[in-house]
Amino acid sequence: MSHPDDNPVFDMVLFGGTGDLVMRKLLPALFQAHVSGQLHEGGRFWAVGRRDLGRAGYLQKVEAEARPHVNGKAGEAAWQAFCERIDYLQLDAEDPAAFQQLAETLAAQNERGVAIFYLSTAPRYFIPICRNLAAAGLNGAHSRVVLEKPLGTDLASSNTINEAVAECFAEDQVYRIDHYLGKEAVQNLLALRFANVLFEPLWQRQWIDSVQITIAESLGVEGRGEFYEGTGALRDMVQNHLLQLLCMVAMEPPASLDADAVRNEKLKVLKSLKPLSEADVAQQVVYGQYREGAIRGQAVPAYRDEANVAPDSRTETFVAIKAEINNWRWAGVPFFLRTGKRMQEKLAEIVVQFRDVPLQLFPGSAAPNRLVIRLQPDEDIRLFMQAKQPGNAMAVTSTVLSLDVCNIDNGRHADAYQRLLLDVIHGKLALFMRRDELVAAWEWVTPIMDYHARHNIEPKPYMAGSWGPAAASALLSKNQSAWHEEL
Amino acid sequence: MSHPDDNPVFDMVLFGGTGDLVMRKLLPALFQAHVSGQLHEGGRFWAVGRRDLGRAGYLQKVEAEARPHVNGKAGEAAWQAFCERIDYLQLDAEDPAAFQQLAETLAAQNERGVAIFYLSTAPRYFIPICRNLAAAGLNGAHSRVVLEKPLGTDLASSNTINEAVAECFAEDQVYRIDHYLGKEAVQNLLALRFANVLFEPLWQRQWIDSVQITIAESLGVEGRGEFYEGTGALRDMVQNHLLQLLCMVAMEPPASLDADAVRNEKLKVLKSLKPLSEADVAQQVVYGQYREGAIRGQAVPAYRDEANVAPDSRTETFVAIKAEINNWRWAGVPFFLRTGKRMQEKLAEIVVQFRDVPLQLFPGSAAPNRLVIRLQPDEDIRLFMQAKQPGNAMAVTSTVLSLDVCNIDNGRHADAYQRLLLDVIHGKLALFMRRDELVAAWEWVTPIMDYHARHNIEPKPYMAGSWGPAAASALLSKNQSAWHEEL
Repeated sequence: MSHPDDNPVFDMVLFGGTGDLVMRKLLPALFQAHVSGQLHEGGRFWAVGRRDLGRAGYLQKVEAEARPHVNGKAGEAAWQAFCERIDYLQLDAEDPAAFQQLAETLAAQNERGVAIFYLSTAPRYFIPICRNLAAAGLNGAHSRVVLEKPLGTDLASSNTINEAVAECFAEDQVYRIDHYLGKEAVQNLLALRFANVLFEPLWQRQWIDSVQITIAESLGVEGRGEFYEGTGALRDMVQNHLLQLLCMVAMEPPASLDADAVRNEKLKVLKSLKPLSEADVAQQVVYGQYREGAIRGQAVPAYRDEANVAPDSRTETFVAIKAEINNWRWAGVPFFLRTGKRMQEKLAEIVVQFRDVPLQLFPGSAAPNRLVIRLQPDEDIRLFMQAKQPGNAMAVTSTVLSLDVCNIDNGRHADAYQRLLLDVIHGKLALFMRRDELVAAWEWVTPIMDYHARHNIEPKPYMAGSWGPAAASALLSKNQSAWHEEL
Repeated sequence: MSHPDDNPVFDMVLFGGTGDLVMRKLLPALFQAHVSGQLHEGGRFWAVGRRDLGRAGYLQKVEAEARPHVNGKAGEAAWQAFCERIDYLQLDAEDPAAFQQLAETLAAQNERGVAIFYLSTAPRYFIPICRNLAAAGLNGAHSRVVLEKPLGTDLASSNTINEAVAECFAEDQVYRIDHYLGKEAVQNLLALRFANVLFEPLWQRQWIDSVQITIAESLGVEGRGEFYEGTGALRDMVQNHLLQLLCMVAMEPPASLDADAVRNEKLKVLKSLKPLSEADVAQQVVYGQYREGAIRGQAVPAYRDEANVAPDSRTETFVAIKAEINNWRWAGVPFFLRTGKRMQEKLAEIVVQFRDVPLQLFPGSAAPNRLVIRLQPDEDIRLFMQAKQPGNAMAVTSTVLSLDVCNIDNGRHADAYQRLLLDVIHGKLALFMRRDELVAAWEWVTPIMDYHARHNIEPKPYMAGSWGPAAASALLSKNQSAWHEEL
């Protein structure tokens, strides 16, 4: 059995191997790991699909669809060496016999390595694939299964999937991926908090006024109207990504960086989220849906005019929530969560808004301190603070200290998927969601879904290219705050 | 009477007008204030000296000795306009009649302005000049007197000067200058502390391990051996500059930035300094004296071989002290003070050494956080902290956040003397030492002087071009610390 610090031989089976995620994200990330010498030379990728492409046909597709997404220029020799690792298997996910064949193919290749099954498929295949893997004996101690979201559409369906997976794989073989957790800036937030004393005494209700977490997309539903109609922003973004980021900000120092030490602390945060009553949802949650508008000067249609979207759809394309955490560190500090499609720009960031100084001594601008952790489009960490205006007056002015997290030590910036895939290969679970976290997250969002379904609430309209409905701003102004904006 | 925020008409009388300080520092700083439009157009400078130079002769000297010290290039027109403000008066500081004439000259020029008397002379003239000014009626409400160090050589002689000055001028007319307090980085330390919440919860014994304050010079006594023999590093640097900087680090938040609110807080720090017993001095103070060595590859002589220095001199050219502050914020936190001549480089800095994190979670380098406020040769503020090493490992590495205090907002960096001279013109006393501060500082250093005199202690030798005697390092290693060094 391989030690987590080893660089093990592996077989990675990519279900949904012809899909978008594999082409645009996974293969480019794996190529980066390959050229960086991070992969064992015996490591192999087995793309799996329903169609009869053959290896040559699949590699043509990879050339056309994956290679353009490689960062920088993929040198020809390196690219060819990478492609040598790739094979293609035609496989029907619902045919147990096919998995026997898969088991034989893998056994023939490599008896002692790690076997990784990446389920980049529609969720309805998760259960049959896991069952067929188990039936074929591909669920041994060296096997790992990677699940991409969405893991269900509510607590019940999530439980159904997780229970079926649990019948086939032990919890420590299950890697529920959330690529936001693989970002350097998120990792750096942990380092900032727990490798420095600087922030620790500040990181609490006495000094922090509020926290904002935004994941904004400028894209719309991009042809995935059918999927999105049954999902909406709450399920698609809040239940997983936003709550995971909230955990990273709010968690107590873990006893170690071991997977379960970290995940125990995250779970404590999720379980401390103040449950929302009907009245709370009405006050603290804003659903929005985009109308027609423009993104960077390009006219874009309303959500209801997208393909496969009902003309009277009440699916939310925007959510803003005021969340609270009922523990000693955070009681009374609002965590404002916000996500939406067709926003003014693609942006993901965490803003820690500190309280004002107790007494304002200096003339001049006097904005309270802010720590801004930017995850998208770039990753960086910036501290907005006050410094003296040079010159004779004793006045202060705003200034920014910036930590370019991707270029420290001239280190190469690892893409989130690259990092997470390597973690899977190395058996590091810390950045993947544990089942109980998922349950706690679903439990917290359930009253929000129920309220909107029960009252058939019409989402508030907002113009495509804006920052969402006015009610989302009002949510903060009620707390004497405002969404972070930069000039 | 002029409001402090006004830009008043003034007459500035520079006693010691042909001296080094006036030529190398004061006139260049005043020229910068002139070209920056910070001086009332009616403002005049009256250089005073014993010799009969005449205005033309004096301006020749200014051209030769002051103009080369102007930052950047002094444009001809601006320089000539500045020189128009300058006149020269031959005056014997000990001749009362001459001051009557001075009074008439000033009265003829400008009846309603501020009159500033800058005593850039040997200290023995301070008392006669003040008395003669008073006798000539030049000590009215619009008069201010600026005193350059050294203000005495011990508590008694300092009291003698201050009492004589107090007979002639009210305390709020007296500006005791310490140019370190005029530096942007020192001002910025106040802004960092009191215009941001970031540092306040950290700024105490729970989170700060120790503080280092260094003022190192690479120069030797530079022909001033006679003066230095009777002074030494403790009187020359510790009693004033180092203790003032210590006050800026350690003071409590003042109720306002008014001069007395700030100076009351500084006084509280000086009065809280733990008095040093004989045993404490023996343990916590290191005197050093430089031997021959080399500065940047240039051989330099030993202190005892300098002109006008006794061959068996026991004057200290280096002092290191472990000081402590007995109050709730700082009890138990050592403040290491260090100053010396013929050190490896010219350097003035304050280093706030934070404690280590309570538990080290991350592999990799793990230096505790440091805040370094550099005053010389450049002014900047840097935060040494830990960030994640980019890439797959969850390891941390040291990184530096830097605040270029002189270039915020592209503001022009005011020289310390420029700032302080403008403060004198505007009647702002906050950055000048009050008499009671001086007394408290002398009281604290007195046991150190007494101990060395009583026991006729031989200073520890150190090589010119080094960082002082080994005992100065031992002072810190006893506290599991080390002087801050950069690669």
